[in-house]
Amino acid sequence: MTGQDGPRRGRGRRPADEVRGEVLAAAGDLLLAEGMAGFTFERVSAISGASRTTLHKWWPSRGALALEAYFRTVESTLAFPDTGDIAADLTEQVRAFVRLMTETPAGRVIAELIGSAQTDPELAAAYRENYSAPRRALAVTAVEAARDRGQVRDDVDAEAVVDQLWGACYHRLLIPDQPLTEDFAGTLVDQLVHGIGRR
Amino acid sequence: MTGQDGPRRGRGRRPADEVRGEVLAAAGDLLLAEGMAGFTFERVSAISGASRTTLHKWWPSRGALALEAYFRTVESTLAFPDTGDIAADLTEQVRAFVRLMTETPAGRVIAELIGSAQTDPELAAAYRENYSAPRRALAVTAVEAARDRGQVRDDVDAEAVVDQLWGACYHRLLIPDQPLTEDFAGTLVDQLVHGIGRR
Repeated sequence: MTGQDGPRRGRGRRPADEVRGEVLAAAGDLLLAEGMAGFTFERVSAISGASRTTLHKWWPSRGALALEAYFRTVESTLAFPDTGDIAADLTEQVRAFVRLMTETPAGRVIAELIGSAQTDPELAAAYRENYSAPRRALAVTAVEAARDRGQVRDDVDAEAVVDQLWGACYHRLLIPDQPLTEDFAGTLVDQLVHGIGRR
Repeated sequence: MTGQDGPRRGRGRRPADEVRGEVLAAAGDLLLAEGMAGFTFERVSAISGASRTTLHKWWPSRGALALEAYFRTVESTLAFPDTGDIAADLTEQVRAFVRLMTETPAGRVIAELIGSAQTDPELAAAYRENYSAPRRALAVTAVEAARDRGQVRDDVDAEAVVDQLWGACYHRLLIPDQPLTEDFAGTLVDQLVHGIGRR
């Protein structure tokens, strides 16, 4: 229970989980609307109604709060399809990821978070723990299931597949020499599944 | 000619190119020794003997100076081999890149530069112009030459190959969920050249 630190909307005490969920939803909206520049405990407190004391109790830094809010917000968009056809599933998922990065402010937010993480070890650890490691695990599980169904090579390195698909997209997001597009997503999967070497 | 702004070592006026080369060498040494944290115009001036006025005249920001110094320092390490065997050449080049990123302070420096570039448009532009675009072009040329020799698919997307090999390495450098190793470099080339799909 959050007691006096809960939302001040005259509704009395509510379960901490409920308050936490509301804070994360409000924080996610703020983050996607304005990016990291406008993202402060003070504004999240004002928008969500939760006190700054509560926010500081639950999240050690604005980076940690931003990360969790980001993850909750994009989680449903990034659900991993499982149709039994690994090439189609990978293409669909990487395309959805590209849309999220390019058609919403999520791309700018995640680029700023990764950028800040390069000189902020706590943020880097929170990023890996709350976001990148669990998302990587989802993709690895899908690739390994495809291997078990006989759709990909027995000796596939599923971790490296993550870097060659989503990592390739992050590369264009962070160093935009070339455009990040849905066609690019399709090309990544095609080249990795079929290989670029002549047969 | 740099005139009064040249190095103050009592050797009189020297060609600007010579002074510039010395500054970049000194700046590169400082950068690889201490990373971006200790990299300032003041220290580069003290080490190189060039006045701060000269440094500011040639480089608009410490980021721009750091980038050019970095590029000059690692250029020879990152030469692109051309043995006529594209898989071997790619493996050798990506492994050399991984060694540079993991066995020298270059990895930390480049991660900090990419990180800062996310909120510094001038640094981002300088990074692409002075470093990432020319290096990308070298790799694309090598892949297209291999295509013309018949070693890779006619419809290969050489730009995407860059993202699926070096981009995959940058992904592990910037978001270190998994280790960046020479074995990983070999796996990247193998999976991309031969494909992960069952034949």
